[in-house]
Amino acid sequence: MFDRIWLNAHLATMESGLGIIEDGAVAARDGRIAWVGPRAALPGPAAETVDCEGAWILPGLIDCHTHLVFGGDRAEEFERRLAGEDYAAILRAGGGILSTVRATRAADEASLLDAALPRAQALMAEGVTTIEIKSGYGLEQAAELRQLRAARRVAEMLPVAVRTTLLAAHAVPPDYAGRRADYARLVAEAMVPAAQGLADAVDIFHDPLAFDSEDTRLVLGAAREAGLPVKLHGDQHGDVGSAALGAELGALSVDHLEHANPAGLTAMSRAGTVAVLLPGATLFLRETRMPDIAAMRTAGVRMAVATDCNPGSSPTLSLLLMLNLACTLYRLTVEEALRGVTVEAAAALGLQDRGRLAPGLRCDLALYRIGRPAELCYWMGRNPCIGRVLEGR
Amino acid sequence: MFDRIWLNAHLATMESGLGIIEDGAVAARDGRIAWVGPRAALPGPAAETVDCEGAWILPGLIDCHTHLVFGGDRAEEFERRLAGEDYAAILRAGGGILSTVRATRAADEASLLDAALPRAQALMAEGVTTIEIKSGYGLEQAAELRQLRAARRVAEMLPVAVRTTLLAAHAVPPDYAGRRADYARLVAEAMVPAAQGLADAVDIFHDPLAFDSEDTRLVLGAAREAGLPVKLHGDQHGDVGSAALGAELGALSVDHLEHANPAGLTAMSRAGTVAVLLPGATLFLRETRMPDIAAMRTAGVRMAVATDCNPGSSPTLSLLLMLNLACTLYRLTVEEALRGVTVEAAAALGLQDRGRLAPGLRCDLALYRIGRPAELCYWMGRNPCIGRVLEGR
Ligand SMILES: [Zn+2]
Ligand SMILES: [Zn+2]
Repeated sequence: MFDRIWLNAHLATMESGLGIIEDGAVAARDGRIAWVGPRAALPGPAAETVDCEGAWILPGLIDCHTHLVFGGDRAEEFERRLAGEDYAAILRAGGGILSTVRATRAADEASLLDAALPRAQALMAEGVTTIEIKSGYGLEQAAELRQLRAARRVAEMLPVAVRTTLLAAHAVPPDYAGRRADYARLVAEAMVPAAQGLADAVDIFHDPLAFDSEDTRLVLGAAREAGLPVKLHGDQHGDVGSAALGAELGALSVDHLEHANPAGLTAMSRAGTVAVLLPGATLFLRETRMPDIAAMRTAGVRMAVATDCNPGSSPTLSLLLMLNLACTLYRLTVEEALRGVTVEAAAALGLQDRGRLAPGLRCDLALYRIGRPAELCYWMGRNPCIGRVLEGR
Repeated sequence: MFDRIWLNAHLATMESGLGIIEDGAVAARDGRIAWVGPRAALPGPAAETVDCEGAWILPGLIDCHTHLVFGGDRAEEFERRLAGEDYAAILRAGGGILSTVRATRAADEASLLDAALPRAQALMAEGVTTIEIKSGYGLEQAAELRQLRAARRVAEMLPVAVRTTLLAAHAVPPDYAGRRADYARLVAEAMVPAAQGLADAVDIFHDPLAFDSEDTRLVLGAAREAGLPVKLHGDQHGDVGSAALGAELGALSVDHLEHANPAGLTAMSRAGTVAVLLPGATLFLRETRMPDIAAMRTAGVRMAVATDCNPGSSPTLSLLLMLNLACTLYRLTVEEALRGVTVEAAAALGLQDRGRLAPGLRCDLALYRIGRPAELCYWMGRNPCIGRVLEGR
């Protein structure tokens, strides 16, 4: 006896390719998927049956890279830059990431949560069931931990799973100007240990514009000592060897990778480190340098796709739009893009219990009124999600 | 005595610039705006008062260029091209616009309407109150008129205003291969007169890849004889003088204009012809050639922004996303973009009764939970619309 069965649906299980089962069924028991297959082979009855009326069921989508918890926004800065104001002057007047840091530091946990909830709801409305949320706008211990607590509370307030990541090494805070290595040491020695129990992973911005390899080894080494898996924002504005370093450190993922070199990608492939692609930032920043998808395919690197939702470089709350951009800008195939927000996104978070429709996994589902899964990638700014299931309900 | 008052709101009236009134009020009587101004100056009572709880009110958005009524979609073609299939081979196998023409010809009015309604609802959910809908996938008289009838019925089924445009000269139908001028003559002599009472305007694809200036004069001349205003898809794939020709013919708008020349833009400005910008197609087709916004500003051309919703080159149902793309890709200012989907979009449809918040105009409103209007342009794939009013209700 199952708790619930979803019938009259087509499935994209993500088991090898898209794993399509036309006229399939999914059965749940105790919040887990108990059975998946063609309806004709469905073994038993259920306490409750849901008629999906021909909808498509995918594993609940996973947004594996967001900065969803932050104070303020940068709409005014956006407006001023378009009106011709000089960006350097805006920066000197306290704009850019530091304005987000100021607003985040000034916000208490309740206001951070209030701002984050509608953002999470917007993602959920498209079928997202797991959201990774990074800190990184506090850049001081109390504010970083407050961001993580607000992120954890999103999952208490809404039917969504949240994975938190400490990104205290997102930028050098103004109070550490010129003392980058000192700040990295503070992150490694104080913040990482303090984040135990609040963070599910630790991330760092390894980039010509941010932290170097030494800082990265220090911070991520501390994370591994604390038993936390690690991730990198890497090779975004230049090739600093993030791909190889991430592989060497056994990172779950290296994210961005616009300038990654082929040897690094091969190392990532061997290490099972996922490449997380963030096409929203490419569009918003009008970057012409794209990640080298052909090299990633050659190397056999796993590729995930995420929103990178953040106020500075990717103000987006649509993972479906990212599917379109991954296809349109990066030329991912439909299969790569859809696996990138399900099974590969789960891998980027180190989660084996979701991202596919298979017995034993969490029964996290997304239901869409579409004719074929490709429609999720083809449309720009259309949401055909008609239902969402978290742990079987 | 007003019928209804909206209070506790900020207004962007679009009267000179964004026309911002903080803590404003809008009053309606008989479906029209009866009063607009600061709340403190509000003259009288109303039968009903709506507390907007600090939301922003804009004129209901106007999507002044869509191909919303069509059969089928091209998601499968999108998928196959990304998977590396040769486009020429896809075309030979009946793909491209001709697949949409086949599907549209095969659909009856009810199925065309069924497909169009959720598309219209998606636009409406973002605050759109007027939608222009073109024919152009029938390319034979009966099917073109069927598209127009389905478009008209959208406004009977849903609380939205629809303006219809005959675009029979969208492409040369396969049955007229090699006889383009003959087809243009058929459009001018038979289809335009037959569309009277069903079409509010006539459009033509004036482009190196489609109809030439002679065809355009013929078709749009017939439209003017029939008392119908005219529009052009122009200068998209090369400079064929669409801007100047549109101005000469007194067109309401010339749309696309990626290759328009400065003299043509100056002529448009003098004629009051609106330039309709379609950034969705720029993104989806990965075009690097953008319309020359600087030249448009110099010439003083009015600029509108629209979705161009269509299955081949701009599968989008988000006018808010087009605001972002107009700013991000074309570098429109926030003011230009927001005027482009309100007052200038109304002008592109020849409508003086909407697009601004001013006494006497239709009371078509869009309500947004935002901190400032720029947020509508800044976010990619976020819908903060919390209400919509059509003719005062
Ligand atoms: Zn990021
Ligand atoms: Zn068009």
